[in-house]
Amino acid sequence: MRVVQKYGGSSVATIEQIKKIAENIKERLQVTSQIVVVVSAMGKTTNSLISLSQTITKNPDKRELDVLLSTGETQTISLLAMALQEIEVPAISFMGFQAGIQTNSIHGRAFITKIDTIRIEEELVKNKVVIVAGFQGISQDNDITTFGRGGSDTTAVALASALKCPCEIYTDVDSVYTINPQTFPNSKQIHKVRYDDMMEMALSGTKVLETRCVELAKKYNVSLYLGKALNKDKGKGSFIMESTDLEQMPITNVSIKEDITLINLNFKSPTLVAKIFEVIKKGSINLEMFYSGKYQKQNHLSFICPNSEVDNIVKELKALSKNIKITTFSEYVKLSIIGSGLSTHTDIATSLFEELEKQKIPVHQIVISEISISFTINKKDLEKAINNIANLFQLQK
Amino acid sequence: MRVVQKYGGSSVATIEQIKKIAENIKERLQVTSQIVVVVSAMGKTTNSLISLSQTITKNPDKRELDVLLSTGETQTISLLAMALQEIEVPAISFMGFQAGIQTNSIHGRAFITKIDTIRIEEELVKNKVVIVAGFQGISQDNDITTFGRGGSDTTAVALASALKCPCEIYTDVDSVYTINPQTFPNSKQIHKVRYDDMMEMALSGTKVLETRCVELAKKYNVSLYLGKALNKDKGKGSFIMESTDLEQMPITNVSIKEDITLINLNFKSPTLVAKIFEVIKKGSINLEMFYSGKYQKQNHLSFICPNSEVDNIVKELKALSKNIKITTFSEYVKLSIIGSGLSTHTDIATSLFEELEKQKIPVHQIVISEISISFTINKKDLEKAINNIANLFQLQK
Repeated sequence: MRVVQKYGGSSVATIEQIKKIAENIKERLQVTSQIVVVVSAMGKTTNSLISLSQTITKNPDKRELDVLLSTGETQTISLLAMALQEIEVPAISFMGFQAGIQTNSIHGRAFITKIDTIRIEEELVKNKVVIVAGFQGISQDNDITTFGRGGSDTTAVALASALKCPCEIYTDVDSVYTINPQTFPNSKQIHKVRYDDMMEMALSGTKVLETRCVELAKKYNVSLYLGKALNKDKGKGSFIMESTDLEQMPITNVSIKEDITLINLNFKSPTLVAKIFEVIKKGSINLEMFYSGKYQKQNHLSFICPNSEVDNIVKELKALSKNIKITTFSEYVKLSIIGSGLSTHTDIATSLFEELEKQKIPVHQIVISEISISFTINKKDLEKAINNIANLFQLQK
Repeated sequence: MRVVQKYGGSSVATIEQIKKIAENIKERLQVTSQIVVVVSAMGKTTNSLISLSQTITKNPDKRELDVLLSTGETQTISLLAMALQEIEVPAISFMGFQAGIQTNSIHGRAFITKIDTIRIEEELVKNKVVIVAGFQGISQDNDITTFGRGGSDTTAVALASALKCPCEIYTDVDSVYTINPQTFPNSKQIHKVRYDDMMEMALSGTKVLETRCVELAKKYNVSLYLGKALNKDKGKGSFIMESTDLEQMPITNVSIKEDITLINLNFKSPTLVAKIFEVIKKGSINLEMFYSGKYQKQNHLSFICPNSEVDNIVKELKALSKNIKITTFSEYVKLSIIGSGLSTHTDIATSLFEELEKQKIPVHQIVISEISISFTINKKDLEKAINNIANLFQLQK
């Protein structure tokens, strides 16, 4: 029996928590003989290191920032190894390069190209718990690289794939929910979720797992379990898998994205479209609900972007041309109704929008994909919309 | 023109200081085109990390402690690289393993076995300042190792040897002195010191450079310069070299060791000697002024050790046998008169002890080597002794 477990930053924020994680691993060894543990940096360490670099330069070199940030995870692995050894569990820590995690050279958001597990396998055979620093690898040029947001989850899934075993991700939420329980306390737990639905949720603003890690798990068919670290109710988390054996509910989840701005652009010259695309692409922003069209000899272009990116985008667009009329709306939120059942239950969109009309909730943009319906509404209508949608699709407890 | 510069922990304790060091390096580039910089962890970082590990275990695994401690230097290299880039100096940082610093596997006090400078040479040719993490390397098993106290100086000297260039060590003292100026404010600077004298000083308690780093410099004939970081008076430090071209003063320095205890052992069974040696060796303590003899059918054994080791040694000796009579004296200090001239000026010992007798300063133990005379006196006589010795050998300003 073999498993890869991943513990996030909030579950290893203090030495006391690291000790508890060690106890937890010791207990697990009674049923699972080979354990590989992936850890993040302690608590807010990564943010502190970023702030430190900002006191030197507003635009730190990405290679050097990777060197700096990698130290957070490196500290956690050694401390967890010590905590395990202290309770007589043989353990050994590995930085990314020692664990054989090879990547391309895109600093700050590197991709894993290959994992050479020889050293890990050697230590597992010696009955050692192997602790691997998440979020980091090594490029072909022998440079330290990091993977960007959710990087430790990616490390865990990639290792599980290479080591041909399941992956358990421990975090500060106890499972996947139909709706974020912080927004909708009456939300329901979901214990089995399809990879596709989980990816769509991540894209749509449900911050449980990053899209990339779920994508990787789907690609290599890694059994993924999501649960709360040190939770007494073991196994009460969520399994993410290819297909669920339950009678599938048509709708799995409603994801909410706040802190977004709708940007509308109007301009005459059609040659501007390509240039505007270039400006937007350069910022490598996650654009959403992108719409382009023509009306009364005017070109229209609209999209949603994170509030934090608005100033930057508007500045770039203004620099591009004086002839673009820019309007921004920040009082919107985006909702996404997600479920693999959507592709077969064609009546869902109809009943959804009928319900919203009945409740007098104006809908601004709508984008429909195979397994999701996304739309924007006014912020002030959020609570009312959530309550009615939860009731309509039985998403409450 | 090429140089290796090393900046210690106190000179890179804050971001402001790191920025100043960067400015300093930029200025130096005007006269020296290829600069390799070795840095320590910021300020008290290493001690903080040790304390952190102590909250988990009193006896952390040495391999894991190396992983933890190495992060201190790794943070400094990336921050200094950013600071240089911010003022438009191309720079790149390397951890020990990236800089090709290969060591044996003795964690916590590893020795460098080989330096592969290919990557450093490549970057120097590209006109980059190369920043290397001090104190760390990589073993043949691909494990992170550290070098123990003064480890960053060792990194710097070893790199200078491999890169065939001089080495400059910047610290918080402005030069070597005849006597520690904190003890004797009227002390004189020495601008040229022989390797042998410098090593003897380090062994005798002058905490300017570690013996190991001077030994390495002597072995590979590395030109060594010691100065104060960011000192306006450039070149006012000390050159450490094979032989000085000055008319050699017979005495270069008086080193002082406080916080020492004299331990006297008396026992009958001569077979105990070997066992006592074993106990003492096990603690890997720097024993000094070791003396063993027989008097009236009793075996005597005496030595000096750091105060911090006394409890441990006494405990071990008591466990070894009940028949050892142990007496300890902690009110002593050890003085060492150092100078390569000692070997030719045979009258120095005579005039020294005549002077001490004249001043009614009792001397307890004496050990004489080729280039030093060491002896212990009572703590209360220290100031008087220093003043008279400084006067006798012209060591004051």
